Amino acid sequence: VESRLAAFSTAIDELIRDLLIASPQYDGIYDMLRYHLGWIDESGNAVAAPPGKRLRPALCLLVAEGISGDWRAAVPGATAIELVHNFSLIHDDIEDRSELRRFRKTVWALRGEAQAINAGDSMLIVAEQALVERAPAERALPALRLLNRSCRGLCEGQYLDLFWEHETSVTEHQYLEMIERKTARLFQTAAEMGALFAGADEATQQQFGSFGSSLGMAFQVIDDLLGAWAPVVDTGKTAELDIATRKKTLPAVLGLSSDSPAGSRLRALYGLDRNLTPPETAEAIDLLNELGMRERTSEVARRYRDEAVGQLDTLAERHKVAPLRELILSVLPGIPQ
Amino acid sequence: VESRLAAFSTAIDELIRDLLIASPQYDGIYDMLRYHLGWIDESGNAVAAPPGKRLRPALCLLVAEGISGDWRAAVPGATAIELVHNFSLIHDDIEDRSELRRFRKTVWALRGEAQAINAGDSMLIVAEQALVERAPAERALPALRLLNRSCRGLCEGQYLDLFWEHETSVTEHQYLEMIERKTARLFQTAAEMGALFAGADEATQQQFGSFGSSLGMAFQVIDDLLGAWAPVVDTGKTAELDIATRKKTLPAVLGLSSDSPAGSRLRALYGLDRNLTPPETAEAIDLLNELGMRERTSEVARRYRDEAVGQLDTLAERHKVAPLRELILSVLPGIPQ
Repeated sequence: VESRLAAFSTAIDELIRDLLIASPQYDGIYDMLRYHLGWIDESGNAVAAPPGKRLRPALCLLVAEGISGDWRAAVPGATAIELVHNFSLIHDDIEDRSELRRFRKTVWALRGEAQAINAGDSMLIVAEQALVERAPAERALPALRLLNRSCRGLCEGQYLDLFWEHETSVTEHQYLEMIERKTARLFQTAAEMGALFAGADEATQQQFGSFGSSLGMAFQVIDDLLGAWAPVVDTGKTAELDIATRKKTLPAVLGLSSDSPAGSRLRALYGLDRNLTPPETAEAIDLLNELGMRERTSEVARRYRDEAVGQLDTLAERHKVAPLRELILSVLPGIPQ
Repeated sequence: VESRLAAFSTAIDELIRDLLIASPQYDGIYDMLRYHLGWIDESGNAVAAPPGKRLRPALCLLVAEGISGDWRAAVPGATAIELVHNFSLIHDDIEDRSELRRFRKTVWALRGEAQAINAGDSMLIVAEQALVERAPAERALPALRLLNRSCRGLCEGQYLDLFWEHETSVTEHQYLEMIERKTARLFQTAAEMGALFAGADEATQQQFGSFGSSLGMAFQVIDDLLGAWAPVVDTGKTAELDIATRKKTLPAVLGLSSDSPAGSRLRALYGLDRNLTPPETAEAIDLLNELGMRERTSEVARRYRDEAVGQLDTLAERHKVAPLRELILSVLPGIPQ
């Protein structure tokens, strides 16, 4: 599946490159987008920084190929999905005050908040244009319907995520509902979009969508694990960032509701009105370990992974899904036992 | 034209209200939009704050009516335009650190930057949905093409506007090109959209678009005049805000390029790396007065107004434009002699 993903990336880059063409005096705004995408460095020189994993467009294109054999027809859809994802990263980084992403300064850290807001806005608009300007007329409108509904979910999820910064008690159920919108919905849309561009009927689109949603849930829960327990080399972010910033990820949500001395101490740390110091961060992680939160979070991740695998088994009866199986393995590596 | 505008506003509000319906736990994000639109107050109670002037959708609907007699068909287009305008206001207010708009706290001043970024994003997405979900299939795609091209221009203009905060010399020509994108383009699109929904051919759409563009240019230049010389009661903003924040509006751009002692003193004030104090603001305005910038800016405003009126005279040969003429009078009042 590796060489396939490289071909996908090339096709997507080509379309984005094309969509970003602008008159010279306005090109500066698109340089922020090119920087974020890893095409140029801080001074504007061409580089090939490791791009994101591009899971969402890969999901879209592999679904299209699995149904019709033709992934190229779905490139406008996959590109729109990837651009929406990147729009949300640029804005989330401002909202979360994250200064690093994929080992590089975030757009706002480099160019200031105001221009970064503006860069994110234009990324979203270019995403819409990938469909409006480049999808065949009979696909564009249903694809835009999927895309914008997904974007609504993204903003709604982000709303709750931000809102909860000042909430003491968030339940596991509430948390899972939130990441369903903030993360899983775009995976779902990616899979639906692939099916749509492959000419599948609505029932099939929805089946693939459910698979995408489960995959997205598993992906987010694993990301939560990494945010607390992964070494910096694996994430390109500050170590244990989620914990230091008292982010309400799944292990935190679960730990904060624990009726034990460790839970109570964790609530005290998360109740501070500032980032945690390195010793406090280490203590919080010790508490989470003591509470068995790594295992419980891993369990949830496995549950969604198994759900996705099960859905894929059903889809395998009528469609070619072997590359999707491989993708799952690359997306969902090493859930600790 | 007044009662007509009220009917337009009602139809637009109805459509927006409908588009904002969400499940209760996610309704909070839409409350920020409702607050910005003047439907609820800071505590969430229903109010009817004076809405914006809604010039852009009025332009769209009056053009549609002037061509086909049926403005209702163009409501999804007008609504999309109005929502895009409001998306840009929410984000611009963050970018410019403006705390007041229409006599009320701005969204970011009320709910913080992070949620305000998110609110603006969702406003843009709802704008897309006004067309994607509510325009007839044969109009939606060309309308989305117009809308998103306009949004690109909006972001490009904003990019330059922000970029110039740290630029010493901006020419009149550069400035006019910038506001063509940042402001006039959406007026142009509003008029084109009206013509599109009325079933006009592309040449007619473009003619109305040119008229809209000239109107938008006149509107922005008059706004620049108000930003320096209007009493606060007329703008709902802090008095002389553009000058206090050293914004490069047209009078400033013209004054800063003056090869005179007054121009040199003005450059010193605008070269400060902070907002001006009230005495400095008063001094800057005295300098602009001394340099005759109020008159020169008024001249430019009149030039665009006359251009718009001339284009309307041509359009009057084939379309009903009397209400548009009235709209011009209400949009472009009192350019000082």
